[in-house]
Amino acid sequence: MNDQPAKFTLKLSCEDRLGIVADVATTLARAGCNIVEAQQYDDLENGRFFMRVDFTAKTGLTDTRAMFGPTADRHDMYWTLRHADACRRVLILVSRFDHCAADLLYRAQTGELNMNVTGVVSNHPRSALNLTADENVPFHHLPVTAETKQDQEARLREIIDDVDAELVVLARYMQILSEDMARYLRGRCINIHHSFLPGFKGARPYHQAHTRGVKMIGATAHYVTGDLDEGPIIAQAVEPVTHADTPEDLMRKGRDIERRVLARAVSYHLQDRILLNGTRTVVFQD
Amino acid sequence: MNDQPAKFTLKLSCEDRLGIVADVATTLARAGCNIVEAQQYDDLENGRFFMRVDFTAKTGLTDTRAMFGPTADRHDMYWTLRHADACRRVLILVSRFDHCAADLLYRAQTGELNMNVTGVVSNHPRSALNLTADENVPFHHLPVTAETKQDQEARLREIIDDVDAELVVLARYMQILSEDMARYLRGRCINIHHSFLPGFKGARPYHQAHTRGVKMIGATAHYVTGDLDEGPIIAQAVEPVTHADTPEDLMRKGRDIERRVLARAVSYHLQDRILLNGTRTVVFQD
Amino acid sequence: MNDQPAKFTLKLSCEDRLGIVADVATTLARAGCNIVEAQQYDDLENGRFFMRVDFTAKTGLTDTRAMFGPTADRHDMYWTLRHADACRRVLILVSRFDHCAADLLYRAQTGELNMNVTGVVSNHPRSALNLTADENVPFHHLPVTAETKQDQEARLREIIDDVDAELVVLARYMQILSEDMARYLRGRCINIHHSFLPGFKGARPYHQAHTRGVKMIGATAHYVTGDLDEGPIIAQAVEPVTHADTPEDLMRKGRDIERRVLARAVSYHLQDRILLNGTRTVVFQD
Amino acid sequence: MNDQPAKFTLKLSCEDRLGIVADVATTLARAGCNIVEAQQYDDLENGRFFMRVDFTAKTGLTDTRAMFGPTADRHDMYWTLRHADACRRVLILVSRFDHCAADLLYRAQTGELNMNVTGVVSNHPRSALNLTADENVPFHHLPVTAETKQDQEARLREIIDDVDAELVVLARYMQILSEDMARYLRGRCINIHHSFLPGFKGARPYHQAHTRGVKMIGATAHYVTGDLDEGPIIAQAVEPVTHADTPEDLMRKGRDIERRVLARAVSYHLQDRILLNGTRTVVFQD
Repeated sequence: MNDQPAKFTLKLSCEDRLGIVADVATTLARAGCNIVEAQQYDDLENGRFFMRVDFTAKTGLTDTRAMFGPTADRHDMYWTLRHADACRRVLILVSRFDHCAADLLYRAQTGELNMNVTGVVSNHPRSALNLTADENVPFHHLPVTAETKQDQEARLREIIDDVDAELVVLARYMQILSEDMARYLRGRCINIHHSFLPGFKGARPYHQAHTRGVKMIGATAHYVTGDLDEGPIIAQAVEPVTHADTPEDLMRKGRDIERRVLARAVSYHLQDRILLNGTRTVVFQD
Repeated sequence: MNDQPAKFTLKLSCEDRLGIVADVATTLARAGCNIVEAQQYDDLENGRFFMRVDFTAKTGLTDTRAMFGPTADRHDMYWTLRHADACRRVLILVSRFDHCAADLLYRAQTGELNMNVTGVVSNHPRSALNLTADENVPFHHLPVTAETKQDQEARLREIIDDVDAELVVLARYMQILSEDMARYLRGRCINIHHSFLPGFKGARPYHQAHTRGVKMIGATAHYVTGDLDEGPIIAQAVEPVTHADTPEDLMRKGRDIERRVLARAVSYHLQDRILLNGTRTVVFQD
Repeated sequence: MNDQPAKFTLKLSCEDRLGIVADVATTLARAGCNIVEAQQYDDLENGRFFMRVDFTAKTGLTDTRAMFGPTADRHDMYWTLRHADACRRVLILVSRFDHCAADLLYRAQTGELNMNVTGVVSNHPRSALNLTADENVPFHHLPVTAETKQDQEARLREIIDDVDAELVVLARYMQILSEDMARYLRGRCINIHHSFLPGFKGARPYHQAHTRGVKMIGATAHYVTGDLDEGPIIAQAVEPVTHADTPEDLMRKGRDIERRVLARAVSYHLQDRILLNGTRTVVFQD
Repeated sequence: MNDQPAKFTLKLSCEDRLGIVADVATTLARAGCNIVEAQQYDDLENGRFFMRVDFTAKTGLTDTRAMFGPTADRHDMYWTLRHADACRRVLILVSRFDHCAADLLYRAQTGELNMNVTGVVSNHPRSALNLTADENVPFHHLPVTAETKQDQEARLREIIDDVDAELVVLARYMQILSEDMARYLRGRCINIHHSFLPGFKGARPYHQAHTRGVKMIGATAHYVTGDLDEGPIIAQAVEPVTHADTPEDLMRKGRDIERRVLARAVSYHLQDRILLNGTRTVVFQD
């Protein structure tokens, strides 16, 4: 196993200019790295360039980063370089509806999602949830009221820092994060909103959808920002509904969409497939 | 041919009460009518009952209507009864983008849509359009400016009345109808909006969608009301898009969705599959 | 609560003839039953009539059945009449891939699927599975080899009879049932096949799909018959794939489709929405 | 206009080896070309590398090809390099159902498909068709019987050569091409099959689908090979159907799928987005 080359994922963005692809590819080729997959995107509107490269190398992470550094500096890149198979530390937040959380835990357990769930946080007690999580996943009950909101969030932040969470997933966590917290988690906190944004922002979107009489419902996974339901969208999906569906039917049908969309968004994040582009995302799909 | 029973479509709505289905079915059975297809819906929220029945009868339209009248009166029904194969008179309005209009004309020509297109009205001259319509379909060029809007609409109304249009289709007609006109055409005027309502109301929805960074775009067919983009929704569909799609790409991808959704809505209307239920629709799908 | 009317589901099929809908509806109306939802289908090819009715009644199950019996006899109906909220006894069979089984268990636990999982049977030991099932669900390990197949199936049948299973779900159970067993479970055993049938029957369908280079993969839920992969289809779904997907990628992407399709089929069965029509099914969707 | 750089599309495949991306990108960068979009794929199973690059250059087509030649030779590439906005010569073949042909003609007329339809060939007379094509598109009526098949195909080949067709589209052309003809048109003849292959090969697929009782129907666009319905698949799509759909309903619903899938496949071909990979295709989607 010792001699098998390691696989890395490089993602980067920078100002677009002639020769970047050549420069990146040549840097890797000279270091004996083999590009397995590469995707790129030029945003002609704002002149930004985005790229994701999977490659194999004979060196370790530190040396590989050192090798690529000068190229990154030359183009003033925002960039990350990680082991492609690195297991990331993830914290899951959930309120009463735990279908998304249960789904993520199952996918972590089977290895489909390459993540280590370092904890589940809920404002409801464990007994109120359906998920039959592994006993090894710590559960934190953080009840919250209007009065205790600030304290609760301080406690939440301690947990995030304690487990050194690389990603925080709001898996139907029905509490609104403060602007401070949203800023602290910028680019590493994914929420699932149970509507096809920008339709039906805010509370009770399935009831709103029923009232409006739409013929499809959807769900939206997005990065959390201080501006509620306005964060950069990562993934969306919809399913048809009919006039006969009550708000409760919509909630039931919607659960399947929410699970699927959130799992896809988390998967893309874990694989370094997403780059922020202002208020939007670049998603290099698999 | 003489002896073959005629096929009728009955659609109705009334206050829900015990025994309506039995009453309708018994009325038809006693008259020797055979139910081929029946769909119903009870709106438990507002206590309204909706039904659509396809049946064969040995009597003509007038006699069949007379036969059903007392039952309808007994339940104070809103109802229509038509020959199932009646060809309806339809007027198509279009501005510069004529993909929807061309699609409807083709479907009329092949008989897929059982309608007689009695005219095409556009605020642009025929030479500005791509559609190669049958020479037999009258084309009306009704240019419009802010000053002439009232006159133009008066002329439009004349045409609608002249051809006795049972349905008016706004096939990417980019002019807003007056409240008066909307009221006059209530329940018989279908518009295609090029977004997944209620997202991106108003002008340039594809540009709005691009700016927001959504991962799917859609189209919505709805009945026209005085309240723009708020009419009862008939059909919707979406397709995935990516970060790489420019507004122009969205417009191109959207055209296919618009055509499909509008054709489906028109087809449902022509087959008496739609009933209004307040600000929503009941659509008995095929 | 005592006075609240009970809700029943009636499903039936019989030879099509004039007046059946009237007869059924009148029978129910005279008994003071209120039809909440009704769907029907006439198969004009073979002259069969199919119907499903949700209604409320003031009588209990036995009396309601007795009330409807004469009408059923008059038309020589195949029919069932059950409490709409009756919790059904279900046995789940699974091999190594337990994503479908885990999904069904979760949906049972949340009450989305109104079923009592009376046991999980696997030819693999519990430790080989990922599912973290409720301790209250009995687990049966029934290993099987070519030599022991007959004995294993005899033991399986004992379990089915012991728990009086109303439905047996093959949730990625990779053993082929004998013709005898298939016959014994006729109409109450649902399998999920991991391809869009009739494409890619038999073993390793994702590998077959990869070799053929299809651009979408799918899954099919069907009733089990002696004729492998030929049973009446209940539900199907697909998702797009690309040239870059390896067979392993297809398996991963396919899991989501399989779960969704199987859950939908089980849900339809539990709600008495499915009627057999020769080698096909009539599915009255919600 | 003179100073605006021209846009080219390069597509290539070759044996995979270290440094190809770097070599291609460096070659282009040194010549002052700017990569606008690039996609690649390594088939790890067979060691083939595939790439598509959109780039701008200051030189004309001949010089740009000459510039890239040595790099292509060094890696023994299969490659094409074309003006990205080159309008390609396309011949459309159609039998009685002309919805696909009419759709392609409309898309050509609006410029959505960048092609010059150099002719429409049918084994039926123009009067039997619905399409109201531009008078400028030559129509060839080539009736065919078992006896005249060879002659008819010889005449067809003359037309193909006369108009120097770069692409031949079988838009519901219900005649089987001879092996010779299939070989002659290898990689430049696209057929639409009205089923979700590999299901329902051969004749009357919608009737087969009805008999099997599937819950979705589909269409498949593929390159034509001597092996009927086995050519490399380019695009597929499906739509849900129900037990109530007759074969005629399936044909009607299928038409929309066929049009969409064929238009997408033709669009990908025209944009040099497709590369053959044995019996499969690599499709670099937009």
